[in-house]
Amino acid sequence: MSRPFSISRYLPILDWGRRYNKSKLMDDTVAAIIVAILLVPQALAYALVAGMPPETGLYASIFGLLVYALFGTSKTASVGPVAILSLMTAAALAKLSLSNSSEYIAAALTLTFLSGVFLLLLGLLRLGFMANFLSQPVISAFVTASAILIALSQVQHLFGVSASGQNMTELLVSLSQSISNINFITFSLGVGAIVFIVWCKSGLKNILLSLGMRREAVSIVSKVGPVMAALITALIAYEFRLDLQGVQLLGKVPQGLPGLTLPNFSLDLITNLLGSAVLLSIIGFVSSISVAQTLAARRRERIDLDQELVGLGAANLAASFSGGFPIAGGFSRSVVNFDAGAATPAAGLMTAILIALVALFFTPILYWLPKVCLASIIIVATYPLINFSTLGKSWKYSKPDFSAVLITLLLTLMVGVEVGIAAGVLASVLIHLYKTSQPHVAVVGRVAGTEHFRNIKRHKVETFDHLLSIRIDESLYFANTRYLEDLIFALVAENPKVEHVILMCTAVNEIDMSALATLQKINETLLDQNIRLHLSEVKGPIMDRLVDTAFFAGLSGNNYLSHNQAVEDLKDQQLPLSAL
Amino acid sequence: MSRPFSISRYLPILDWGRRYNKSKLMDDTVAAIIVAILLVPQALAYALVAGMPPETGLYASIFGLLVYALFGTSKTASVGPVAILSLMTAAALAKLSLSNSSEYIAAALTLTFLSGVFLLLLGLLRLGFMANFLSQPVISAFVTASAILIALSQVQHLFGVSASGQNMTELLVSLSQSISNINFITFSLGVGAIVFIVWCKSGLKNILLSLGMRREAVSIVSKVGPVMAALITALIAYEFRLDLQGVQLLGKVPQGLPGLTLPNFSLDLITNLLGSAVLLSIIGFVSSISVAQTLAARRRERIDLDQELVGLGAANLAASFSGGFPIAGGFSRSVVNFDAGAATPAAGLMTAILIALVALFFTPILYWLPKVCLASIIIVATYPLINFSTLGKSWKYSKPDFSAVLITLLLTLMVGVEVGIAAGVLASVLIHLYKTSQPHVAVVGRVAGTEHFRNIKRHKVETFDHLLSIRIDESLYFANTRYLEDLIFALVAENPKVEHVILMCTAVNEIDMSALATLQKINETLLDQNIRLHLSEVKGPIMDRLVDTAFFAGLSGNNYLSHNQAVEDLKDQQLPLSAL
Repeated sequence: MSRPFSISRYLPILDWGRRYNKSKLMDDTVAAIIVAILLVPQALAYALVAGMPPETGLYASIFGLLVYALFGTSKTASVGPVAILSLMTAAALAKLSLSNSSEYIAAALTLTFLSGVFLLLLGLLRLGFMANFLSQPVISAFVTASAILIALSQVQHLFGVSASGQNMTELLVSLSQSISNINFITFSLGVGAIVFIVWCKSGLKNILLSLGMRREAVSIVSKVGPVMAALITALIAYEFRLDLQGVQLLGKVPQGLPGLTLPNFSLDLITNLLGSAVLLSIIGFVSSISVAQTLAARRRERIDLDQELVGLGAANLAASFSGGFPIAGGFSRSVVNFDAGAATPAAGLMTAILIALVALFFTPILYWLPKVCLASIIIVATYPLINFSTLGKSWKYSKPDFSAVLITLLLTLMVGVEVGIAAGVLASVLIHLYKTSQPHVAVVGRVAGTEHFRNIKRHKVETFDHLLSIRIDESLYFANTRYLEDLIFALVAENPKVEHVILMCTAVNEIDMSALATLQKINETLLDQNIRLHLSEVKGPIMDRLVDTAFFAGLSGNNYLSHNQAVEDLKDQQLPLSAL
Repeated sequence: MSRPFSISRYLPILDWGRRYNKSKLMDDTVAAIIVAILLVPQALAYALVAGMPPETGLYASIFGLLVYALFGTSKTASVGPVAILSLMTAAALAKLSLSNSSEYIAAALTLTFLSGVFLLLLGLLRLGFMANFLSQPVISAFVTASAILIALSQVQHLFGVSASGQNMTELLVSLSQSISNINFITFSLGVGAIVFIVWCKSGLKNILLSLGMRREAVSIVSKVGPVMAALITALIAYEFRLDLQGVQLLGKVPQGLPGLTLPNFSLDLITNLLGSAVLLSIIGFVSSISVAQTLAARRRERIDLDQELVGLGAANLAASFSGGFPIAGGFSRSVVNFDAGAATPAAGLMTAILIALVALFFTPILYWLPKVCLASIIIVATYPLINFSTLGKSWKYSKPDFSAVLITLLLTLMVGVEVGIAAGVLASVLIHLYKTSQPHVAVVGRVAGTEHFRNIKRHKVETFDHLLSIRIDESLYFANTRYLEDLIFALVAENPKVEHVILMCTAVNEIDMSALATLQKINETLLDQNIRLHLSEVKGPIMDRLVDTAFFAGLSGNNYLSHNQAVEDLKDQQLPLSAL
C-alpha cells in the first residue's frame, strides 16, 4: 500500500483545495453552521468535565479545527473537545495535586502538547498500527464505564452541590456526603433541561416528521435541543435572578480570541504526564478514526490512518499553544457534519471561524448560563455511550473476550480511567497470546477415494501405522512452539510404529525464529529415534525464507507441495532402521 | 489433553516409585555419584555469583533436589543452583542496597520463597503457557549477554582484586580502577585452572578415546575437570600457604546441615522483590523445561509442563526454608545425569544425600580452596553459553526478530539483566502484534478450467468485474481488523463495478469479538452502497460460534462451503439496485 512521495500526502488541503467550487462551498457552509450550533454548548460543557475554564473549550475548538482542516484526510470528522478525553484530562491532572488553577491550566497545555507530539510522531513514523492494540470489546467496555463516570461527575451540578472523585466509589461517597445541601431550584432546572433535550430527540422529531419535514432536516433540527436548552435556561436565570437563589451560573467568560499560550515544559511535569498523554492519545485517535472511517466508506472515500495521526497531532499542538486542552474527532458532531452534507475539510475551517465569532462577540450572553444546564447536556450526551450489551455478547461468543471486557469495565469504574484502559490493553494482548498458544491441531487421514485429508476424530478416513499426518491450524510463533513440541513428542510416544511425521501447513501463515529453532530441535530429536520429519503445503512467502535455513538443509524428510503427494510417496516406505 | 484427576499426577513419585527395582537403583546410583561430583564445585561457585556464602549453594542443592524428586516429572533434570539465576539473584538484591550480610541472606530467602510461590501458583492454576511469551531468539540473546556479565563478574577473582557492577560498563570501569592491584599468584593459579579444565574437555578426552575407552565414559570423565582443579588448587594453596601470599581462600565453611531458616516476610521487601521473582522464575522455568523436554523426548517419554512448575516451585520453597537461594534445572548437569543413565528421579534423591554428606563431613577441606579456582570454573562454564550466531541468523531470516535480539542483547549488557529480559519480552509481543497487524491479503481469481483460486497479481486467472474475491492469510483479531476494514474499503473504492465481496477464509483460524464487530460494520457499510458481503470456506470451529451472532444473522450475502461454489453462484447475479 505504499505510494510515491508527494507533498499533498502530508498536506491534503493541496489536493481537495484545487478542486474546490461554489457548490461545495454551499454544502460546507450549511454543515459548518449546524456543527457550530452543536459545538458551542459541548465545548463549554466538556471544558467543565476537564476541570478547565469554559472559554478554553472554545479556544481548543478554534485552532484545532483550523489546523485539522489543513492536515486531516477525513472530509467530515469534526475535531474538538470530546467527553472521554476531557474526563481523562481531569484524571491525569488530578494525580498531580496542583495547588492553583493557573498551574492546572499550564499542566493541561503540557498534556495537550505531549499528546500532539506523540500523535505526530506516530504518524510521521507511520506507526498508526499501534492503535490496533485496543480491541473492540475493550474499547466498548471502556467507553461505557467512562460515560458512567462522566455522568456521575455531573450529578453534583444537577444537585447544586460540590463533589469530586476519580472513580465510582469516590464519586458516590462524595455525593452522598453533600446531598443534604441540594438546591431544589437548580435540580428542577436541570431535570427540566434533560427532559427538554430528550424530548427534542424523540417527541419533537416525531411531530416534525408527521408534519412532512424531510428526514435529514428533522434529524438535524432534533439536535439543536442543547442550544435551545442553554438559551432558555439562561433567559430564566436572567429573568428571575436565579444567581441570588443559589443557582450557579457560568459567570464571566473572557471576550476575545486566545493569545499564544505556552505549556509548562518542566521535565518533572513531562515525566509525570507522559503515560497519561500516551493513553489519552491512543483513545482519542481510535475514537476519531472509527467514526471517520465509517463515514468515509459510506461515500466510497478513504482516509489515510497515518496522515490522520499527523492531522490530530497537529490539531493538539495547535490547541496547546492557544489555551486549549486535548481534542479529537467527536462521534456525534462528525455524524451531524456528514448528515448536513459537509463536502470537504473546509466545513471544519468555517466552523472554526463561527466559534471564533462566538468567542469574540457572544461571551457576555454566556454569563447567565446556569452550570446545571451544561451538566444536563453532558448527562444526555453520555447516555447513548452506555452499552452493556458487549458483556452479554462476549459471554456468548467468547469467554476470554468476556473476561477482558469485565476487567476493563470493573477497573475503570472502581479504580479509574487510566488503570482501566491499561488493564484492558494488557488483558487483550495476554488473551490473544493465550488463545494462539494452544492452537487447534488435528491428526488427519485421507478420505478414501479422494485427495482430501480430514481430522481422524471426526471422519472415517484411511491412515497408515507408520505415517503420522498432523495439520496445525495456527501460525507457528514463540507463544505456541513449546505446545507444538510437546504435542508432537506425545503423539510419537503414543504411536510407537511411527516412522514418518508429516506436518501439513495449510493454515500456517508465519514461522518465526522460535518456531524455526523448535522445528530444528523436533527434527533432530525425531531423527535420534529414527523418525523422519516432512513438511507439506508450506505457503510461498514462508518457503521463500525457509529455504536458506539450517533447519531446511538438515530436514530429515522431504518438502511436499501437496499432502496427498507426501502420503502417496511415503506409504510404502517402511525403511529398515539401518537405512537412515 | 485433559486427564482424569489422580493423586499421582501431583505426586509423580507414586507412579515411578511403585515400579522401582534393583536395576534402576544401580543406574540411578552411578548417575547420582557423577552428578554430585559435578554439582559440589558448581554449587559453591554459583553461591559466589549470587553474592551468598558458599555453603548456601550446598544447602540449596540438598533440599531442592529432595523435593523435586517427589514432585517433578522429569526423570533426568538435575535441580540446583544455576549460573543465570544466581546472577539475577545478585542483580535483584543489589537494587535493595542492604546494609549487612544477614539482611542480604534473609532477602535472598524471600526472593526464593516468592519465586517458589509464583511457580507453584502457575502450576496449580495450570498457567504454564505463560512461559511461552519468551521467544527463542530473545532467550538466546539474554543467555549470551548474561553469560558475558557472569564471566566479567568473575574477572575480579581472577585478578585477585575487588570490583562490582550490574552491567558491562559498570563492571569494566570498576575492573579498570583496580587492575593495578592485580595479584599475580592468584592470576597464574586461575589461568592454570582454566587451561586444565579446558584440557580435560578436549585434550584428555582425545587421549582417553584413543586408549579405547567407551565414548559415554569419556564424556563423563572429561567433566570431572572442575573437581580435579579444585582439589589440586586447594592442595597447592595448603602446601605453599598461598593465603600468606594474598591469594583469597574460601575460608571456614560451616560444617553440618542447615537448620530451618525463615525468609524475611516484610511487606516492603516483598513488594520490592516481586517483579524480580517473576522474571527469575520464568527464566528458571524456561531453561529447566527446555533441557528436560529434549532429554525426555530422546527416550520417547513425556514431561508435564504444569507439574514441572509445581516441582520447581516446591523445590524453591524448600530451598527458601533451608538457607538456599533460587534454583532450577541446570543444563549441563541434566545432560550428564541423562548420559550417566539416570533412570528415575531417585537419582536426584541420592545426589541430595551425597551433597548432604559433603556438607556434614568434607567442609574442612574446602577451607583451602582458592576463590580464583571457583571463578575459573564459572568462566569455563559460561563460555558455551555465549553464542552470537542468533544475531546473524535472525538478520537473515527475519528483521523484526533481529531487532528483538538486538534490543535484548544490548539492554542486558548495558543496563542489566532485569531490564534486558523485560524489554525482550515486550519487544517479542509487540513484534508479533505488528506482524499479524498487516496480514498478507490477496485478491484471487480462478485458474481457468480448475476450481483453484490464486493471487491475481501472480497468476493468469479469470475474474468478474462485479465480484471481488479476497483471501486473508491470517486469523482476524483486534490487531488487524482496522487494516482489513481499510483494505476492503480501498479495494471497493478502486473497483466501482463491484457488487459482491467474497471473503475466502481458508487461513483464518480465529475471529475474535473485535473482528466480529468489524465484519458487521463492513457488512453494513457495504450494504449502504448496495454491495453484498459473502463468506467462503469458514472453518468448522469458527462457524460453530459464528452462527449465533447478529453479524451472521444480518449478513447481506451467503456463506459458501467452497469458494468455487460462491463464484459459480454469483457470477451471473448482477442484480438491479432496487432488488436489494
